[in-house]
Parts: sequence; structure tokens; C-alpha cells
Amino acid sequence: MSVGNPFKSMAPNQLRRAARQGRLSETTSGLAPGFVQCNLVIIPQDYAGDFADFCRRNPRPCPLLAVSPTPGDFSLPELGSDIDVRTDVPRYRRWENGALMNEPTDLLDHWRSDHVAFALGCSFSFEEALLADGLEIRNISEGVNVPMFRTNQPCTSAGPFAGNLVVSMRPMKPKDAIRAIQICTRFPAVHGAPIHFGDPSQIGITNLQQPDFGDSVTIKDDEVPVFWACGVTPQVALENAEIPLAFTHAPGYMLVSDKPNTGLAIL
Amino acid sequence: MSVGNPFKSMAPNQLRRAARQGRLSETTSGLAPGFVQCNLVIIPQDYAGDFADFCRRNPRPCPLLAVSPTPGDFSLPELGSDIDVRTDVPRYRRWENGALMNEPTDLLDHWRSDHVAFALGCSFSFEEALLADGLEIRNISEGVNVPMFRTNQPCTSAGPFAGNLVVSMRPMKPKDAIRAIQICTRFPAVHGAPIHFGDPSQIGITNLQQPDFGDSVTIKDDEVPVFWACGVTPQVALENAEIPLAFTHAPGYMLVSDKPNTGLAIL
Repeated sequence: MSVGNPFKSMAPNQLRRAARQGRLSETTSGLAPGFVQCNLVIIPQDYAGDFADFCRRNPRPCPLLAVSPTPGDFSLPELGSDIDVRTDVPRYRRWENGALMNEPTDLLDHWRSDHVAFALGCSFSFEEALLADGLEIRNISEGVNVPMFRTNQPCTSAGPFAGNLVVSMRPMKPKDAIRAIQICTRFPAVHGAPIHFGDPSQIGITNLQQPDFGDSVTIKDDEVPVFWACGVTPQVALENAEIPLAFTHAPGYMLVSDKPNTGLAIL
Repeated sequence: MSVGNPFKSMAPNQLRRAARQGRLSETTSGLAPGFVQCNLVIIPQDYAGDFADFCRRNPRPCPLLAVSPTPGDFSLPELGSDIDVRTDVPRYRRWENGALMNEPTDLLDHWRSDHVAFALGCSFSFEEALLADGLEIRNISEGVNVPMFRTNQPCTSAGPFAGNLVVSMRPMKPKDAIRAIQICTRFPAVHGAPIHFGDPSQIGITNLQQPDFGDSVTIKDDEVPVFWACGVTPQVALENAEIPLAFTHAPGYMLVSDKPNTGLAIL
């Protein structure tokens, strides 16, 4: 990210407009602080019911924040009055039969009248709450993507959507982990409390320095790895479902909404 | 505890009456389920201000629930209309200059017009909340006292009252520990969330099988020790203060109150 980044001072709707006009081509990490950013999944209506069930049955990795009002409608009024899900994410991913095809910067030529968009909560929101409490987030202080791992913990399947939970990992001192559990408990719509800490082999992770997604981070001697359910889980479920066509955001290039992070706190 | 224990079905005021009449001579563990049981500290008025400060500055080990209305008053109306702190605990401890002298069954011959009683929250309340959620409490399932350890974590001192934190330890699977942190966070008046988990040496504990107070419990391979601030901490502070005279309950022989445990939940 460049120094003196003009996007740093933009409101969510300005960032969306910049993405729409092709001016925003970087990750949205650290942009529009205070506002909810979302994972995006777009699939044909035929699969929408099953995918909604998958989210409902697996609320920790797949916290559903908004769905298209009707198939083919590219707005998401629950998250911002002017949202156009075809253009407002800086980088998308196109999937065919579960395989990643390419990363278009808009979906104007791909959008169909039977497409349904799902917006899911993202860890950026809870990371902000943890930082505000004075906790260190290692992937942020080391300027890398959070390390993410495939686990051996199966999600509850729905129709063709199935697969194991993917988790993100942040190392913390135990007392900070306890505080993080308390804070994240307030935010079930952005993955909620961690699902595990300590011994990674208990959830099927063999090497913490070799994440399946993202980058590795330093784990200090007095720290334990803390694991949160991760929004990559639905992408894995999409891969497994091998449906003919699907679109998602590209990792780190999120849909920036007008919803304040604090509004997600259940208490 | 005897089989067919008649005390099991008694209400708090009946248990207090039984203690008052010398009929209740066992620990109060498991009695009057649903009602708050309290640690008790009785000290001369000259030290009461400092002890109140010590509690306020160390709310996790010393959550203050009630104080005598005036010096010499042996009631505690905040916790039960008929409470007599001189008689309603089945077994007391008498301390002189920080040394344990004996364990009287009432304080009728010891009570003075300058005595002030402090009632502090106790882990029985949060253990009940954890059991209600389906978690296993090892010291309960093994039928022993919870293991307690002196740590190297100093309390904030107040006048002569000082010392390191004492913790209780309950082993749990990480996912159960996360749930326990969430549940105990609701109950700051009974020690609140754990203060540590995992590596005991980080808080100055060398051997988990040799507790400083209570009994050792089994720790399984897939479990981590979880540590809570413990109500023995004020007894250690009393020992260190070496004040001429003090009384406490004997461990496990608590003051049973009329206050429901659920009433302590802050949310």
C-alpha cells in the first residue's frame, strides 16, 4: 500500500465509487476504518437456497449479513443505498465447476438475471475491535495477510455445499487471548469468539509456519496460536460443490459497506 | 458428605439456622444450589478501610458482595434478612498476627463491637453456571477440592494488605475453555473470566500436581489448565498483613446467602 494513500481518507461510498470506476485496485485492508467489510459470494438462483442453508448451519465461518433482494438485483440496500455488487469490489474471482478461472475487476459482462449475491462478515471488523482494546494483531504489525489453515473439522453440509472449516490464526499471550475471546463474543456477525487455541494438531493443522492461505507470522515463546472460523470456508465449500458458475471477491479485496462495525456488537 | 444428606434439600435460611444451631458441620459445597455462597473475612474497624481498598483494587480475587452495615453489627442484610455472621458459617478460622490459631464453629465469644465483616464472591457460583452449560468441572467430577496455587502475580496492595494472587485451576479442552471464558465473563462478582490458561510457569506455578491449597486433579492430554483468580488470595493478604486479630470462614465452609446466582450475571 502506497504512502500518502488517497483511499485512506475515503468514506465507504467513495471507495465503492473508486472501485466502480476502476481507480481502486488494491486490497481494502485498513481502508474505511470503522465500517464493515464483507466477503462476497455470487451464485445462480438454483443454488441459492442450499447456500443460504449452508450459511445458517455454519454461522461462525459464514455469518450472513445481506442477500440480494431478488435474483438478478445487483443492489444490497441493507449494506449501502448505492451498492452495485457487479462493480463495487476491486477484484473478483470467477469459478467454474469449482475451479478458479480468473480474477476480473468487474462483473458487468458476467451478471445474469438469476444471480444472487451473499455478503458475509469478515475478520477486519473484529480485528479493529481488538486493536481498539490495545491488543496486538500480529498479521497487522508484520504487514502481511493473516495465516489461514484447512482443519479437519467438518462443516454441516447443505445440498452440494460441504467441506472442512478453514480458520485464521493470530498468536497471542494467554491473557490477551482471554480478552480477545471476550471482545469477539460481542461480534457473532464477524465470526464471533475463537473456536480453538493451543495445540494445532487437535484441529488437524500440522505446521503453523505453512498456512494453506495467507502468510505465516511470528509466534513468540510466550504466545499460543488462537484460531477463528474464517470466511475462506465458504470458498472451499464452493470449490467442493463444483457448481457450474460462481463469483467471489478476491481475498483481501472486500465489499466496503456503510454499516458501522460497532453496530454489529450484540452487547 | 453422607448419602441421603438432609442438608441437600434445605433452603439457604434453613442451612444458616442449622449452622447456627451446630447441626451443620460439613462443607457447604453442593448445598443450596442456585444460591450465592460467600467467602467471609472479619477484621477490626481499624483495618477495614484498607481491606476495602484491597478488595476494590483487586476485584478479580476479592469481589466484594457485602459489608457490615456498621462496625459491630453482625447482620448482612444485603445477603439475607436473618444472617448472623458470628454463627451462620459452619466452621471459621481465627488468625492472630497472620498465623492460623484454630477453627471455631462460632464466633459468639470472639465478636467485638469494632468488628467488620466482608462477604466476597466464591467460585461455587460460576462452577454452577459452567455445569449448567454442560461443561465438566474436574474437581467436582473427581469429588475433591479444587486445586489452588500461589502465583508470582502481585496484587495491588492497600495498607498492610499485600501479596501474590492465588488461583484455582480447572483443566478443560480448549473449546470448553473458550465457552467457560464467555460464561464467566458474565459473572465478575464471582471472580469473572479466567486470568490465564496453558503454561503454568508463565504465572510462577512449577508443578500442577502439587497445589498449594486443595487437591490435585487429573489433566488429560487434550486439556489445558485454566486459571481463575481465587478467594484464598485475601487470606494470603491477611497472613501477610499480620494484623493482631482476624477471622475467616474455613475453606469450603461458606456463608450461604439468599441471593440467587443468576442475579450476579451482568448480562
